[in-house]
Order: sequence, then C-alpha cells, then structure tokens
Amino acid sequence: MFAFDGTVLIEDEFLRDGLQNEKRLFSLEEKLGFLAQLEAAGVKRIQIGSFVHPKWVPQMANTDELFTCLKPREGVTYTALVLNGAGLERALAVGAKHLSISVSASETHSQKNTNRSVDGGRAKIKPVIEKALSEGILVRAGIQSALGCGFEGHIDPDRVSDIARDFAAMGVQEINIADSAGLSNPRAVYELCRRLRDETPANVALSLHLHDTRGLGIANFVAGLQAGVRIFDAAVGGLGGCPFIPKATGNVATEDVAFVCEEMGIETGINWQMLREPVERAEALLKRKLPGRMSHMPPPPWAQHSEDK
Amino acid sequence: MFAFDGTVLIEDEFLRDGLQNEKRLFSLEEKLGFLAQLEAAGVKRIQIGSFVHPKWVPQMANTDELFTCLKPREGVTYTALVLNGAGLERALAVGAKHLSISVSASETHSQKNTNRSVDGGRAKIKPVIEKALSEGILVRAGIQSALGCGFEGHIDPDRVSDIARDFAAMGVQEINIADSAGLSNPRAVYELCRRLRDETPANVALSLHLHDTRGLGIANFVAGLQAGVRIFDAAVGGLGGCPFIPKATGNVATEDVAFVCEEMGIETGINWQMLREPVERAEALLKRKLPGRMSHMPPPPWAQHSEDK
Repeated sequence: MFAFDGTVLIEDEFLRDGLQNEKRLFSLEEKLGFLAQLEAAGVKRIQIGSFVHPKWVPQMANTDELFTCLKPREGVTYTALVLNGAGLERALAVGAKHLSISVSASETHSQKNTNRSVDGGRAKIKPVIEKALSEGILVRAGIQSALGCGFEGHIDPDRVSDIARDFAAMGVQEINIADSAGLSNPRAVYELCRRLRDETPANVALSLHLHDTRGLGIANFVAGLQAGVRIFDAAVGGLGGCPFIPKATGNVATEDVAFVCEEMGIETGINWQMLREPVERAEALLKRKLPGRMSHMPPPPWAQHSEDK
Repeated sequence: MFAFDGTVLIEDEFLRDGLQNEKRLFSLEEKLGFLAQLEAAGVKRIQIGSFVHPKWVPQMANTDELFTCLKPREGVTYTALVLNGAGLERALAVGAKHLSISVSASETHSQKNTNRSVDGGRAKIKPVIEKALSEGILVRAGIQSALGCGFEGHIDPDRVSDIARDFAAMGVQEINIADSAGLSNPRAVYELCRRLRDETPANVALSLHLHDTRGLGIANFVAGLQAGVRIFDAAVGGLGGCPFIPKATGNVATEDVAFVCEEMGIETGINWQMLREPVERAEALLKRKLPGRMSHMPPPPWAQHSEDK
C-alpha cells in the first residue's frame, strides 16, 4: 500500500500559480532570483509563467522576457501555461519546449474564466494543442476543476474522463488533473486517477495539481501516489490560490510534498530544507507568512544537521 | 484502497491534551460548557482530564470535580488519563468507567516525563492496569512516542510491538499508538498499525493519537484508516502540543478528521460544522487563532446550507 516504485517529479508553480494573484508585481530580476533558488534545491520542472494577455494578468507580463533569460540546465525543464493560440505563438517565439494547455471541466468556472462553455473551450484549445505538438513542444494538457468546483460542487467524473481520453487521442505527453478549488478528498483523488489511468494509454503520464484549501492537500497527494501518479504540481511556500474560493490557502507546498516523500523513502531530487530561503524571501517581499508548513518547522531529529540540534 | 468498512470513533482530547499546556486555567464551568458543545456536535468519546498531581499539571486540577458533575449520556463515553496508582484511586473514587493508562516507548522521553526508564514505567503501570481491569474499568493502554521521539529520533518498532503484546496479554480493551511529537508519516503509521494488528488479538481495539506538527496529521489519519484503525484521538481546534517540540501545532483537529471522513463517506456521528462554536469560544478565551482548518474555512458547496451560499 505504501511501497511506491519510481521517483516523484515535482513541478514548482510558485512563479505562475503562486504569483498570479498577488497585488505586488515581481520584476524579472526577482523572478530569476527565485528560479536560481529552486534550481539549487533540486527542483526539476518549473512553471515560470503564463502566456496570457498582460491586461488580464499583469503579474505574468514578463513571462516572455523571463524565457529569453533562461539558460538550458541539465535535467531541468522550464514550462509555462498557455490558454489560446496567441499565447502559443508567444511561447514558440521565445523557444519554449514544454507547455501546459488547459480547459475547465466546470461549466460555470469555464464561463467565468474564459467566457466559454466547456465544449467551447475544448474546441478552442484542440488546434492549439495540435499546433504545439506539430512544433515539437512537449504538451501537458490540463483539466481544471476536475475534482470539484466552488460554484457547481461535484464534477461528473464521466466528463473528466471524456476530456482526458480526448487529450490522449490528440497525442499529448501528459494529462494534468487539477483540484483547482481544493475540494477533493483522498478517496476521490484515488478513484479518479485510477480510472483515468485505466482509460488512457500508459505512455501518457498523469499528473495532479492540488490545493490545500481545506487541509487535505498532503493526504490527497499520498492518495495520488497510491493511484500511481508520479508527477505533482506544488508551489514553494504553498503560495497561490483560486480567486474564486474565499480564504483559499494555495497550492500544496513544494517543501511539504518533498518532505513527505523523503520521510516515506521516495526520491524527488529536492532538498526541501534548501527551500526555506526562497520561502523567507517571498515572505519578506509579500509581507506575510506563507502557509507551507516545513519552512516553519524544525526538521525531524534524523534530518537535522548536527549544528542545528 | 479507500473502501472503508464500519464507522469511525473520535475521542476528543481538547479538555486534556488540548488544555494541559495552556497558561490560562479553565474553570469547571468553562470545561462543562465545552463538554456540552462537543456532545451537541455528536462527539461520542471525550477525554475530560487527567488524574495527575495538580502540582505538576494545575490545568487538570479540577478533573475529579468535573467527573462528579457528569451525567451519564446515552452513547457518550467520558474518559481520562491516569499515569499511576494514586491517579487510579482518584479515578475510582469519582466513578470513572473508562481510562487511558500509558507509558512512553522512548527512553529519553520516559526519563524526562516520569523520571523512569521505559522498563521502569512498564513495571510501574502493570499493577495499575490490572487493578483498573479488576475494578471493571475499560482500559485503553497507551504507547507514547511510538512513532518517533523528538530526542531519540526513530523508535524501534520491535519495542513498540513488545509493549503492545504485553498490554494485550494483560487483557486491556484498547491499545493506543501515539505519535506524541508529530514525527510520523503515512507509510510508518500504516506499517506499524498493520504489524500491531497482526500481533494482537482481534478483540483488542487499536487506536491512533496523532499530532499535526509537520502537516502530515490528516495524511497519517488516512493511513491509519487504511491499516484498519477505527478509533482516533483528536482535539477541537487542533489545540494541544508536546512541550518537548518547538512550535508543535497540536493534535489533529476533531473538525478536520470528521470532515475528511464525511467527504470520504465514513460515518463518525459528528457534525463538524457544529464544532465552529467551541473553536470560536476557545479562540476568544485563549486570545489566539487555533490551527484546526475547517473551523476557519467555508464548507464545500455540497455541505453548505442554502442560507450560507
């Protein structure tokens, strides 16, 4: 039940999902500083921004510039979010090699977020995904609100399954299942992930995007592991949150998921204790304490350096 | 993997583990007020105090008086903690019917807490347990620091197993496995509980006492469910903490474990939304926010009364 094979890949989304709701705009230099700290701690995939119109999300306005500053680094993937054809063109122009392209599984969320129905959103992104794949981009196709919606409540797993199978048929490399509002529970995570695993080809990776809104983030993460998922989104400090959910406390924290993996003997490549620095830096810049736990707690005795004891 | 049979019993320890480290002393009336709120919300077992010397733990000084005020209530068990023969005499004098009697599995913790070795502690409580059983008391024998120690680090499961089998041989009704310092992880919880389940008679219940110190409390709770445990300790608001662990954030919160059970379709008998009131009352009296999550978060859309939406 807890004998997990393989390693776990964490995609850190501090720079995208984390910063996109913050009033304070982060400069290119600040973002590059966080990037360097994440890489130093061993984070292997980093979502650095979103190719959305800067009018809607000014926090992401320097995503193109950030991409052009990146130097390829062995074993590290830089990725970003794309929501439409214009975003894809920008991503291609700066040489992106890996992208997330997503739709919502909730009618209400889809309407509020993009002014389109779910089917309208699916029709709109299909050619975007196909174009990206034809350009050699590694595509992660995402399903937002796949595990619950703050407006609609439960989301029919049949609908999520239909979207996922459609993505698989397009030839994407990964399907991301997002609990965008932090409404899921371990049983629901396990059951949906098992179902999608059974219904999609084994060469399409499944990944999970979890929010800790109601304190179930780590338990949901472990349930995902049990269902065979090995790629997870997280954000340093647990920053982030859904603008549609009051008091949403953000993504599961990268340091917390790396910690629970380490404790259970699962390799992530991340030294979670090295993530205290970016958390402290983010807290200083944002002038508040972030919700991630292990950046504020002493490590277990067996993980302490002798000078800490 | 998540098809859980049976119901879950939550023992609320707000009045004992919760209050025992607070500077503010709670009056008999205040404690009775909390008790009434817990009962109204459907809590079925309540640890109301500890029969320790008031010189050491003045917060528990009114435990005897509190017991004499209790009126038997259908389906509700009142219980308390006993650490020695003198405590048992006091418990018997006030008519207690259910008691927790415990030792530590960690040498250092045992020495600091009771000035005795583990073996010394075991020898000391054996006659206490036997006397309680002979008086018709339902005994829950507890193993503190069973899943890690802030001083010693890992605790040998062989030692925990030896203590548990010894307790079972004495004829106790329940064995409580305590992660007193909040150092465990889901895999360790699962493996230890499965082992103890295999090594002890099926008619001896296993229960888990979890602290959320490092944010793994709910994940550990779910792992305990997966191992077959159906009795769990928790405290309203997540109050409580180990005096030996800096920044320890207390027990898993009763409202949070009842919430995750409800979401996964497991019956606890507890209306977790009714626990907001005692949490708010405790926060007003203690003048700080408590760590429990669901007393501060909106319920999922499907758990909202129409007037809340």
